[in-house]
Amino acid sequence: MKLIEKTILSTMYVCEINEKNPTDIIKKKCMLPDNQFNDKIKELIEKNMVNEDRITLTEMGRDSLRIVLAGGVFDIIHPGHIHTLNAAKLLGDVLVVVVATDNTAVKMKKRTPIHSQEQRQELVNSLEVVDLCLIGQENDIFKTVNHVKPQIIALGYDQIHQERYITEGCKKIKLNAKVARLQSPMPESSSSKIEKEYGESIHGI
Amino acid sequence: MKLIEKTILSTMYVCEINEKNPTDIIKKKCMLPDNQFNDKIKELIEKNMVNEDRITLTEMGRDSLRIVLAGGVFDIIHPGHIHTLNAAKLLGDVLVVVVATDNTAVKMKKRTPIHSQEQRQELVNSLEVVDLCLIGQENDIFKTVNHVKPQIIALGYDQIHQERYITEGCKKIKLNAKVARLQSPMPESSSSKIEKEYGESIHGI
Repeated sequence: MKLIEKTILSTMYVCEINEKNPTDIIKKKCMLPDNQFNDKIKELIEKNMVNEDRITLTEMGRDSLRIVLAGGVFDIIHPGHIHTLNAAKLLGDVLVVVVATDNTAVKMKKRTPIHSQEQRQELVNSLEVVDLCLIGQENDIFKTVNHVKPQIIALGYDQIHQERYITEGCKKIKLNAKVARLQSPMPESSSSKIEKEYGESIHGI
Repeated sequence: MKLIEKTILSTMYVCEINEKNPTDIIKKKCMLPDNQFNDKIKELIEKNMVNEDRITLTEMGRDSLRIVLAGGVFDIIHPGHIHTLNAAKLLGDVLVVVVATDNTAVKMKKRTPIHSQEQRQELVNSLEVVDLCLIGQENDIFKTVNHVKPQIIALGYDQIHQERYITEGCKKIKLNAKVARLQSPMPESSSSKIEKEYGESIHGI
């Protein structure tokens, strides 16, 4: 598929989850004048990738995209995060990142994050590699997984213990997603290393 | 100017500093097929914005872009950085960020950064709002300023003491740049707040 078609389909996918109209976003992203935009959409409808409403994907359009899901707290961003997210993005076409809610973050890290879930969402959304950042749903991560319907769930090198929990949860919602374990090419840049350098009090950043 | 022209000119500016050929980057960014790309470049040469070499800007092309320069250590990225950089970007068309060298960072923060200058450059380059991130030059920030030739130098709310130093340095290199002082809309997200939350040992993050 051409880059421009991939971009149109990806944007429609992201906008459908975000409940936004994709038209102007696509025109801006692809820098298309109206007539060329209309031709492209017509072409994608003929190929049965886009619905007649011109703004949503058909099942075939949706299946043509490989969606990768990753997650974390992201109270700050360090270079190790960038490497992990870049590696996750390479596994597919669209990278969706879920930030833990404030309550879940406390459970995960035994510390209240400095930044609210909305601030952490904005932080992750500011990364070029991330197509969409969502705030997780409390107590049931599979609600979010079912909403995103990824083909691939990418776990960071320090999230490996969650693998079985995730494969079993996916089975329950009848989602055929692969779990990918990412190696960190920069272990010296993990949060635990930052903790070591800056003292125990930084644990959880 | 149209978005597509702005994008072509901005990319040429960035590539000239980076010593890269902009052709393929522009084609990808603007999703232009070869014939449309050639027409656009021809048009910009006729408008005296692009040189006959098809890859560099004329003085007029360069002057049509408002370049904003910002700087810092950026050992990690927190939401306050994003707000400051977004505000800086709004002042112009191209946002160039200079990260302090490891030696300068030690002088500024009285602490060795966890991440090397190359890692910090990559971190800042991963932000969508940043068009170009450079590593500063030791002992003379005005070498970098003269290289970038910004119309606007944006200082973060905690860098205000540097204003006179910068205006005087610009005079010496005969650069007519305005200094903009950015207010942080999120003072609760500054490094000093992070220090307060996580203990004194985090100072400098």
